[in-house]
Amino acid sequence: MGRKSIYNSLRPFVGKPILKRYSKERRGIEMKVSKLVGSRFKERPADCVIDSHALMVRGGYMKNVGNGIYSEFPLLKRITAKIERIIRQEMDAIDGQEVLFPVTLPADLWDESGRYESVGNELLRFTDRNNARMVLAMTHEEAAVHLVREYAQSYTKYPFMIYQIQRKFRDEARPRAGMIRVREFTMKDAYSFHTSQEDLEDYYEKCYQAYNRIFARAGIPEVVTVASDSGMMGGNISHEYMLLTPVGEDSIVVCTECDYRANMEAAENKMVNEDTDAPEELQCVETPDCKTIEDVCNFLKSDVKKSCKAVVYQKNVDDTFVVAFVRGDYEVNETKLRNLVGGEIHPAEITKEDCLVAGYIGPYGISKGAEVYLDVSLKGISSLVAGANKEGYHYTGLNIERDLQKADFVDISKIQEGSICPCCGKKAITIKRGIEVGNIFQLGTKYTKTMSMQYTDENGQQQYPIMGCYGIGVGRLAASICEVFHDEYGPIWPITVAPWEVHICCLRADDKEAKEAADQLYQKLLADGVEVIYDDRKGIRPGAMFSDADLLGVPIRMIVSPRNLKESCVEITTRDKSVKEVIPVDEAIESVKELRKKLYDQIQEKVSR
Amino acid sequence: MGRKSIYNSLRPFVGKPILKRYSKERRGIEMKVSKLVGSRFKERPADCVIDSHALMVRGGYMKNVGNGIYSEFPLLKRITAKIERIIRQEMDAIDGQEVLFPVTLPADLWDESGRYESVGNELLRFTDRNNARMVLAMTHEEAAVHLVREYAQSYTKYPFMIYQIQRKFRDEARPRAGMIRVREFTMKDAYSFHTSQEDLEDYYEKCYQAYNRIFARAGIPEVVTVASDSGMMGGNISHEYMLLTPVGEDSIVVCTECDYRANMEAAENKMVNEDTDAPEELQCVETPDCKTIEDVCNFLKSDVKKSCKAVVYQKNVDDTFVVAFVRGDYEVNETKLRNLVGGEIHPAEITKEDCLVAGYIGPYGISKGAEVYLDVSLKGISSLVAGANKEGYHYTGLNIERDLQKADFVDISKIQEGSICPCCGKKAITIKRGIEVGNIFQLGTKYTKTMSMQYTDENGQQQYPIMGCYGIGVGRLAASICEVFHDEYGPIWPITVAPWEVHICCLRADDKEAKEAADQLYQKLLADGVEVIYDDRKGIRPGAMFSDADLLGVPIRMIVSPRNLKESCVEITTRDKSVKEVIPVDEAIESVKELRKKLYDQIQEKVSR
Repeated sequence: MGRKSIYNSLRPFVGKPILKRYSKERRGIEMKVSKLVGSRFKERPADCVIDSHALMVRGGYMKNVGNGIYSEFPLLKRITAKIERIIRQEMDAIDGQEVLFPVTLPADLWDESGRYESVGNELLRFTDRNNARMVLAMTHEEAAVHLVREYAQSYTKYPFMIYQIQRKFRDEARPRAGMIRVREFTMKDAYSFHTSQEDLEDYYEKCYQAYNRIFARAGIPEVVTVASDSGMMGGNISHEYMLLTPVGEDSIVVCTECDYRANMEAAENKMVNEDTDAPEELQCVETPDCKTIEDVCNFLKSDVKKSCKAVVYQKNVDDTFVVAFVRGDYEVNETKLRNLVGGEIHPAEITKEDCLVAGYIGPYGISKGAEVYLDVSLKGISSLVAGANKEGYHYTGLNIERDLQKADFVDISKIQEGSICPCCGKKAITIKRGIEVGNIFQLGTKYTKTMSMQYTDENGQQQYPIMGCYGIGVGRLAASICEVFHDEYGPIWPITVAPWEVHICCLRADDKEAKEAADQLYQKLLADGVEVIYDDRKGIRPGAMFSDADLLGVPIRMIVSPRNLKESCVEITTRDKSVKEVIPVDEAIESVKELRKKLYDQIQEKVSR
Repeated sequence: MGRKSIYNSLRPFVGKPILKRYSKERRGIEMKVSKLVGSRFKERPADCVIDSHALMVRGGYMKNVGNGIYSEFPLLKRITAKIERIIRQEMDAIDGQEVLFPVTLPADLWDESGRYESVGNELLRFTDRNNARMVLAMTHEEAAVHLVREYAQSYTKYPFMIYQIQRKFRDEARPRAGMIRVREFTMKDAYSFHTSQEDLEDYYEKCYQAYNRIFARAGIPEVVTVASDSGMMGGNISHEYMLLTPVGEDSIVVCTECDYRANMEAAENKMVNEDTDAPEELQCVETPDCKTIEDVCNFLKSDVKKSCKAVVYQKNVDDTFVVAFVRGDYEVNETKLRNLVGGEIHPAEITKEDCLVAGYIGPYGISKGAEVYLDVSLKGISSLVAGANKEGYHYTGLNIERDLQKADFVDISKIQEGSICPCCGKKAITIKRGIEVGNIFQLGTKYTKTMSMQYTDENGQQQYPIMGCYGIGVGRLAASICEVFHDEYGPIWPITVAPWEVHICCLRADDKEAKEAADQLYQKLLADGVEVIYDDRKGIRPGAMFSDADLLGVPIRMIVSPRNLKESCVEITTRDKSVKEVIPVDEAIESVKELRKKLYDQIQEKVSR
């Protein structure tokens, strides 16, 4: 397959007919910087914590309307439209059929799945004029099952996948970082339906690859997948697509020796305590005024790595105490614990009347009224310091395997830097930060069972279909690309998602010759179907014009100036500063088109097939 | 300009790259009827009043999710995507810049414009997790002003137009007729900003023409514009785009002699009573048990056309009575009355204590406590029957001009069939029914003034920009097209918005030769970039296959059957039954492509430039 076809295939807006109505040319839509709606300014807004947010506000990409709610200026809308187009093409290529679900849903659909009750405040519930209960959809599993449960009553209809690109609302407690964590957003969400786990897994793999292509085509092949915990979505196997960046809000566990990657919830903490010290005798000692494990270790002058810390929760259903014991220097991962407990939990409030003695809780002699979990980080330690379940006292010399009647160790702690990789077994775990730009889930039958969706199989038996679901946040992806590709002056958009391909700056547009030359180049590029924005503002200094161009982040820049025109030349540069050439005017169009091809090819090379 | 270029320009999905990834061909996306997600069934659903609703439910286009809320199956999504594409192209062609506003808006934006208070229950108000007041946007004037009020502070930025295609929610009291009147819907809404009324009018005219092109390209050049009342939008001049159909919910005033068209609210009732009878003497007569004007006329054996009817309202602000007098056979148009009153009114509740005598209200001797409006339908009548403002009595022989001290006639009645055209003056008014598929408004400064959006003019003075706004409901347009183009078996989609261009039916797909021939034709059409859906289901009778095809409403059908193949032929028909040909297999592709071109040309011929 030739380069040319690949190149064309990557250019979302090319081939769009009637750009100039009823012309045979594939003419681009005219746009001048002087007409582009959107305010640009110099000052970094005080409320912007991360660079992409600051630059996209400063550049006139978006405007805050309310808490975690934004309007998109034309600049951002062009970028998100390109992203959506890439997504649609890849979803269609894996036999996805585009549908549209409503943003507002009747509560009874969410009653069916049980999520009207089980999801927290991030689900916005409201009532309409007739007092009917409704929700703003934050995800559309219920709507997807509702749409197809009459259609897909025979096994012959399977498998199939439906997707939509639609607004969603999630009433986040703390919206932040511009488009990274908002309350209202555009999302592509896809739902696949299968008659067997194998078939789901086959499709899951296809979708996995489609996602890799989407991110590569959007210019960020760096996105990595991590195994994840499915959380409130139900189901088991799931992956998150993470863009690694220091400003990301998620922690990702990465092995430097193999390709293991997981989020903190999914990363198994494989602890091996190589403790060769002889076990001490179990002793109850007075530890006055020692409320934390650090206090105790300081007081006893013992190593915190030889201590046993208690973290106490209560079950939401009946307030039963759940005590998690981890090594003093480890943290409990609540998601892991919640999965073991099998229900929602919250931090405990312990009173004098309770069976637990706050500050002095230990596994030895603990009340039978509490549910106890021992983390693997405690395994194999010869002598531990631990609470004595008695006000003002701790044990020393606790050896769990020796002293407790029953000692099942489970994985409820957060993995740490330098831990053992659960995949290759080497001590090569690092913790990185990332932005989640997509996720895929094997949902199983959670929704089809609760919502009574069934089909008749080959043998005439009724079965519940197995589902997968697949999401990408469009606005977050745009912001993530900006977060990766920017400098202090503005975004550096990959050409596949850039608002335009070429930016013409006419310095001294009051100079007749310069203006005429720039006008001609602009018209020629438009006529050739190149997406071009033209800055022909008069009376603006080159520095200001370039500052604006930097904020627009268009990959190719063509600079027309009286000085270069004296030599019959124009200057061509790239936003990333890798190219800076002065070339004859009459070669300018071809040079720009070649450069453009090269930029698309560079992205294409990273798209795996 | 040649036919070919016109033809290509009308085909929204052609030219879309990477239909088959990385192939040089403009290959269509594969789709078989057996895989198309959506249920089809025979029975007309009981709750469907109009045909388009019934057919679009029966055909698997959409599914009701809640009161006035629908999901779109792939079939409808393909149609709305084509409509959106046509709209985008025409908006871009008049220099529109696409933006995106949120669906959820903070209430304080609507406080600024005053609409948080003034709009009724159709505005859905809710609170978020922090108890902040919010609304679901039903229209986006406030959001538009919010987006651009910092940007457009200098006259040099004007004029400009921004538009979006976005979901909206309007909490309709009575959703009905499928996609015609729903609560959640996709709408294209555009907002233009100007520095002079002349400039607004110029742009308004451009948009007016763009709308005509949009409807013509969507296959319904029959759409007419009517002058309308702006209602809650503010401003003065506005037009509605009406598709005339007996099932429409709006009444439209049309002159058969000139091109005058208006909605009932905007149509001036030009009454001339040619009453040559000599005026009678004013007499107060007893009219026992006559509560309605018909009762009175029957009792007095007088013509209802010579009676004066009272319709009583109260002002919302202070419950002042507003009495509208119209000729006995006319109806009050509340919008006209409201505009005269200058505020909201509601039907009156009259008690014994009030200054009005219910059932006997007349203009002569009425209490000064009521605000009185006399309709033009009463002008020039020599002798009227009217209430005497006294329990059990009416006047006869009332001559308003003679008997009342002051008699200003105003237009507060609904125009009737056969009335005088306000434009050409002929008695040629007819009343038609229509669906409103779009509207355009000259908003004036209502929003810029209330929301403090200003710019500095050439002279350094602060001014309020003048706005226009322009809406089209995407789903309603799809349903309207179906309402106009259908038969008892299904929709007959115009090729520009049809879900596919060609539908191949392989009768007897169990016949090896028939299957192979159909497969080949399918692949060839796909390779040529034709949008084709293929029915190769086995064991299905031709009647059932055609029924499904009729419900899909694809304009061109190619039927491959063993019988025709014996003669080396296939059959080509159109959904509207205008074409039915048996042609040699090896000419089939070219024939289909020619027919396709013809169908696009037929639509193009009606698009005015």
